[in-house]
Amino acid sequence: MSRHASDAEREIRDLAEGWRDALGAKDVGKRTAGYAPDVVLFDVIGPLQHTGLAALQQRLAAWFSTFEGPIGCEIRDLDITASRAAAFCHSLHHFTGQLRDGASLDMWVRFTTCLRRIDGRWTVTHEHASAPLNAGNGQGSGMDLARDHVRRPTVR
Amino acid sequence: MSRHASDAEREIRDLAEGWRDALGAKDVGKRTAGYAPDVVLFDVIGPLQHTGLAALQQRLAAWFSTFEGPIGCEIRDLDITASRAAAFCHSLHHFTGQLRDGASLDMWVRFTTCLRRIDGRWTVTHEHASAPLNAGNGQGSGMDLARDHVRRPTVR
Repeated sequence: MSRHASDAEREIRDLAEGWRDALGAKDVGKRTAGYAPDVVLFDVIGPLQHTGLAALQQRLAAWFSTFEGPIGCEIRDLDITASRAAAFCHSLHHFTGQLRDGASLDMWVRFTTCLRRIDGRWTVTHEHASAPLNAGNGQGSGMDLARDHVRRPTVR
Repeated sequence: MSRHASDAEREIRDLAEGWRDALGAKDVGKRTAGYAPDVVLFDVIGPLQHTGLAALQQRLAAWFSTFEGPIGCEIRDLDITASRAAAFCHSLHHFTGQLRDGASLDMWVRFTTCLRRIDGRWTVTHEHASAPLNAGNGQGSGMDLARDHVRRPTVR
């Protein structure tokens, strides 16, 4: 691996750790640090796609407000590929927490985050987050499928 | 955009068009041309993740066999970002067709495809395909949400 790629991977890993910590603290601004104003998002919940940092921040704030306390987020299998001007990473996120409606959340979500080097900074221009459907009933899942398919923790 | 990036985008666009044509023809080999032996896949249907070209090809063959005739695939909003050694693209795929069980498929799927330049060829090392969940009922969707959110056809 070139020194350049190694530096880029470290920078992107630092970003990912910052996003995880910001999520735990329900800090919308820090959770979206480094996201482009025109970021294109494929999210767990519909619509099919939406665009823009403002929309992302509104959706995050709404989601954060459904939690009674902190949001737990464990990230596994973070894998980063970086070149001079483009990079991508993918990982599995385990979200846990108590919801205001009395339910609890315990869900695995797949994340693919794509970045461009813009004005000397890694900038997220696309993110794809999803839960797989069950083949049988078309229901969203992610709750019971993870244990066999995660390989190792890479962000602690 | 540098000439290098422009050449890369053309190569990746050619790959994407080849995959679309191979899907229509239910040709597993051509549909997976350029995929790495250890490609990491987040698929529409569970599990959470799976790894490897052989697994991908088995899943594709099983999916293709559920169709009575050809598979329709329209690709919209293909957006490609390429650097020297890494690239990514995202797009919306509209799948249609008659299934052997009598039902018909009409579904939108989001695709994010991530590539590395390996031995002078663009190689898919990660792909994330999903349908969004409905906020209300946790059901998979993609059927009725697309019309307002697609911007323009970019692969015809």
